[in-house]
Amino acid sequence: MSDVLHYVDEQQDAARERLFDLLRIPSISTQKEHREDCRRAAQWLVEELRTIGFAAETHDVKWAEPGHPMVVGHADENDAYAKAGQTHVLFYGHYDVQPTDPDHLWHSKPFEPCIKEDETGRKVIVARGASDDKGQVMTFIEACRAWKAVHGRLPVAVSILLEGEEESGGENLLPFLKAHQADLRADIALICDTAMPNRHTPAITTSLRGTVAEEICLTAAKQDLHSGMYGNAAANPAYLLCRLISGLRDETGRITLPGFYDGVAVPDEQTRAQWAHLYPDDAALLGEVGLSHAAGEQGFSAIEQTWCRPSFEVNGIGGGYQDDGFKTVIPAQASAKLSFRLVPGQDPLKIREAFRAYVRDNLPEDVTVTFTSHGASAGFAVEKESPYLAATLKALSEEWGEPAVTTGCGGSIPVAEEVRHALGMDALMVGFAQADDHIHSPNEQYGFESFHHGIRSWVRILAALAE
Amino acid sequence: MSDVLHYVDEQQDAARERLFDLLRIPSISTQKEHREDCRRAAQWLVEELRTIGFAAETHDVKWAEPGHPMVVGHADENDAYAKAGQTHVLFYGHYDVQPTDPDHLWHSKPFEPCIKEDETGRKVIVARGASDDKGQVMTFIEACRAWKAVHGRLPVAVSILLEGEEESGGENLLPFLKAHQADLRADIALICDTAMPNRHTPAITTSLRGTVAEEICLTAAKQDLHSGMYGNAAANPAYLLCRLISGLRDETGRITLPGFYDGVAVPDEQTRAQWAHLYPDDAALLGEVGLSHAAGEQGFSAIEQTWCRPSFEVNGIGGGYQDDGFKTVIPAQASAKLSFRLVPGQDPLKIREAFRAYVRDNLPEDVTVTFTSHGASAGFAVEKESPYLAATLKALSEEWGEPAVTTGCGGSIPVAEEVRHALGMDALMVGFAQADDHIHSPNEQYGFESFHHGIRSWVRILAALAE
Repeated sequence: MSDVLHYVDEQQDAARERLFDLLRIPSISTQKEHREDCRRAAQWLVEELRTIGFAAETHDVKWAEPGHPMVVGHADENDAYAKAGQTHVLFYGHYDVQPTDPDHLWHSKPFEPCIKEDETGRKVIVARGASDDKGQVMTFIEACRAWKAVHGRLPVAVSILLEGEEESGGENLLPFLKAHQADLRADIALICDTAMPNRHTPAITTSLRGTVAEEICLTAAKQDLHSGMYGNAAANPAYLLCRLISGLRDETGRITLPGFYDGVAVPDEQTRAQWAHLYPDDAALLGEVGLSHAAGEQGFSAIEQTWCRPSFEVNGIGGGYQDDGFKTVIPAQASAKLSFRLVPGQDPLKIREAFRAYVRDNLPEDVTVTFTSHGASAGFAVEKESPYLAATLKALSEEWGEPAVTTGCGGSIPVAEEVRHALGMDALMVGFAQADDHIHSPNEQYGFESFHHGIRSWVRILAALAE
Repeated sequence: MSDVLHYVDEQQDAARERLFDLLRIPSISTQKEHREDCRRAAQWLVEELRTIGFAAETHDVKWAEPGHPMVVGHADENDAYAKAGQTHVLFYGHYDVQPTDPDHLWHSKPFEPCIKEDETGRKVIVARGASDDKGQVMTFIEACRAWKAVHGRLPVAVSILLEGEEESGGENLLPFLKAHQADLRADIALICDTAMPNRHTPAITTSLRGTVAEEICLTAAKQDLHSGMYGNAAANPAYLLCRLISGLRDETGRITLPGFYDGVAVPDEQTRAQWAHLYPDDAALLGEVGLSHAAGEQGFSAIEQTWCRPSFEVNGIGGGYQDDGFKTVIPAQASAKLSFRLVPGQDPLKIREAFRAYVRDNLPEDVTVTFTSHGASAGFAVEKESPYLAATLKALSEEWGEPAVTTGCGGSIPVAEEVRHALGMDALMVGFAQADDHIHSPNEQYGFESFHHGIRSWVRILAALAE
């Protein structure tokens, strides 16, 4: 293995150049004008996998919009390994990225990757998708390349699945997994889309939050109205939207939907203590982004609020006049993009219905509502007894020189739940991003350390899983 | 006078053509790129007034932004009339217009006036500013033209003041009136910027609501955040903005700011009965715009809610991701344009301070706010004993063949209050717009009837005020 690690060290610059090529493709999955770019990114990955001895191809998906292709690859030694009873891993990542707005806040162009030193002095790669998730995807592919280059084969059987809709609902993933069960089933899934709790502590994320994402649009008058002529008497959708949104949390930050907390467990004291050690105060999580106080449910620390408590957020809101100056108008419409983050135990469909019922029940005369779903997925928790968990923790600890920990993650990675549901196997989430990587924000970045030690980590994990 | 009325009837087409010329100038006062258009509109009016024997010129204003010129004109017989003790009127209108968004809802171009038949079969002129206020301004100028053409002089001394910032704060008007007191003082102001209660009942508006218009912007994190990584723990300015806005009205629609209703009087039973006759139910006001229920303060009819009760409205709100699809982001900022409509007796500056104190007092940790004022003006009520009120009511009744009534108006026309304050005289608000003229909205229109009988009404009013 040390030869493989040495090869990784030698090849750092070339690996980074390959990542830059992928980052240059603006594969924004939620924007229709980038449809072809998503296909280009998928095709680029297929070519890359083929160069390192994978049988790889794109698969069209047709169950839902937007329908960006899946990339699937299998190492050519898989068949032989299957006969030998060797461990088989399925790696998952995604090649699509978030939109780039607000564009004026980027210091460099989002799809022209460049190298900078960040505020903390570490060297980083700056580009949309650097950290979420193209950089992380390439840590695994580069680890495979190194094994292949040095030994001509991987230590375990490896299949790779790369999705193009993780940032836009991902509704095709589950039906795709179900339709390709035989092709994709392995012993364990390895998902690389998470962050480390700090610069030096490697982690396996053992719980994730799911999401219910809803867009609502309220409509009242048949046109925008003069707020003098009609103000008070005419229903104002922008005001009513604020009222509905406001009512979703109480004074203590708890979400008010009936049954919302059904099935939600409070973490055990040992876990809370471990997390309190990693994040001694709220600022330890929030200071990076200029905040210092946990804003959510009272009685829980900032890290608990994001790792193990469900949340409600306004992701976007708009209505009426938003340009320069002032316009005394009552808008005819107002809309909002809202999301709930769910922890294991909560039922996403039940919560979506409770939300819609709440809105309908509180809608006054003259006002109508439309709902658009932008996805619903359950929270996820890894089997603590998984035979692959200990091996992976050990490999990570050796690479980083510090004991690896298990953590939660506030984000949604529906694939973890869906892999379990469709393929009947567990998933280990191992990622090397940092909290200050600005993911989903301007100036997204991925550290040289993350990328390089990420590759080395996978080299070790693949070896550990073979034992 | 009948010769003058006959002249107006003969000259209808030419009068409309002149109005079209004015409507073609996109004098949007709140948008910087239309600064020169505002100046062009002012200059067009100066030329027009000169052709009918007025000494007219533009006056630069410099006290506040945006600084669009005032147009002032005096009929050349004014000096002689002053010596003879003849009545002197000051006419007020405004040549600036609202922005045109949302542009896609216009059926014709906002600044290419055209003639259409509206849903109710009446012929209308369609253009931004047709009704608010260029069409109304031209009713008066055309009445003056007719008197001059037929008799070579007006029946009373006439001065004209046309503002270019009525739709954008109008902060220069009061200092301008104060600085030009000697030039502008008259016996009575005539303001043409209001609507008739229905197609056939002429009205003098005797009360107006003032406005406090505020823009607030809340800022939390130093950048947009991933709502998975930070959702719950990070302060969400879009949610907090909703919460602040929601809290400004209680369950009964009353505004919650301390002292907000200080000085607010309930109208007498006779006035309420007169209004109930004009508007027998809420739909009589609201049906035109597709609504049917009074949405504001319980215990008041729709017309009372707009004519004599103060209100709070969200005129615009924005924050986070508003484009296609979904972005799981916690916005770093969210902002809203908010306004209070005030009735006579309320103190706008006190209410602005109460609003700002409410926001500051309810702002959680980590969140900062900025306030931008977009104007503050008091409500207004006409002296019921004004010697000019009866004469004007009588002239209107004669023109329209139906008794003229006194009404309220929910809009703000700060000039009425400011004329009283700066020039020490009362103001009569006479207008010919209709509730369904779509002012401040797409497809703004002004009826042929409004324009033609508006001109004829002023012909009669000028005569009546001379007696």
